Amino acid sequence: MSLPLLEQLIDAFRILPGVGQKTAQRMAYHVLEREREGAQKLAEVLAKAIERIGHCTQCRDFSETEVCAVCANSSRERAQLCVVESPADRLAIESATGFRGVYYVLQGRLSPLDGIGPRELGLDALGTRLQQGEVQELIIATSATVEGEATAHYLAQLARANNVRPSRLAQGLPLGGELEYVDRGTLSHAFGTRTEAT
Amino acid sequence: MSLPLLEQLIDAFRILPGVGQKTAQRMAYHVLEREREGAQKLAEVLAKAIERIGHCTQCRDFSETEVCAVCANSSRERAQLCVVESPADRLAIESATGFRGVYYVLQGRLSPLDGIGPRELGLDALGTRLQQGEVQELIIATSATVEGEATAHYLAQLARANNVRPSRLAQGLPLGGELEYVDRGTLSHAFGTRTEAT
Ligand SMILES: [Zn+2]
Ligand SMILES: [Zn+2]
Repeated sequence: MSLPLLEQLIDAFRILPGVGQKTAQRMAYHVLEREREGAQKLAEVLAKAIERIGHCTQCRDFSETEVCAVCANSSRERAQLCVVESPADRLAIESATGFRGVYYVLQGRLSPLDGIGPRELGLDALGTRLQQGEVQELIIATSATVEGEATAHYLAQLARANNVRPSRLAQGLPLGGELEYVDRGTLSHAFGTRTEAT
Repeated sequence: MSLPLLEQLIDAFRILPGVGQKTAQRMAYHVLEREREGAQKLAEVLAKAIERIGHCTQCRDFSETEVCAVCANSSRERAQLCVVESPADRLAIESATGFRGVYYVLQGRLSPLDGIGPRELGLDALGTRLQQGEVQELIIATSATVEGEATAHYLAQLARANNVRPSRLAQGLPLGGELEYVDRGTLSHAFGTRTEAT
């Protein structure tokens, strides 16, 4: 015998970030009481998204197509490649700055203890791309965390080894802060005054 | 042209209680990055729950069947009827106390300004049930909010009009507090020392 559907639903909500038993319960009751139509829509879109959203083969960002809209846009400047940790970080830079280059989304940061090395972040593919000579500046926009800094250091070395100039967002990011939570103004300023990476 | 699936997904998550744009975005990224299987399960269970979970015809609690498990349980004492505002409140009482009677779930509380009157809370049906003579005590477990108190007052009058003894959970509930957030001990004590309703 399987669990009652209501309990299954509460369990299922717990996969969402920051959602414990109590919040999952509230979500289940809320949709059943007041959001049946919206919940039906959520179920449909969620199933479709899981099925159809993969990764762009060029920048590793989420994409429904083999190459995402930014990478496929011929008016973007391919000489500037901005490396970010996550799709949310890419979105933050895209909406806060006037950047017209292209991105590379690591989908994580170096964390040897968790088994996340250069290969898991696609840095071998990035190295190959830098070798091809199209990229002139590698803008390193990893977060100001310990792992983000280690990742930035690795990226700067990778760039130099391929005769690409590495740069780093300017001081001004709050220390230890996640990039995606930085306010637009600070982020835009830090992006504009980026310095050579060390 | 429809919105990209990722944006549709972020929008869809916003139906959940307390979820704004930023949280919805994190949820979408999180499931795509790390919880594809769990998200698929959530989509399935959610669709099924919306389709199959209705209300018990006896107590108005959520139920997959016409009569819920508590109401269908012949060992529960039908002379004690406990009125709660929500399924979560019913669950809190059920797990914190040794109550062996049955419940009536209002799915709200009296709020004339929002158009929620006795009819919307099923109080006409409750009156009919009290008239039938099986219920001897109406345990009023609405919340200690202004609207909860007004609802309690209405319920006490309804009980007396039908020669049913109304009782109210004892003082001890934090004032203005939502019943479902009360700790087990306080709730159990208040339930055990309930007083006659005024
Ligand atoms: Zn791309
Ligand atoms: Zn029932």
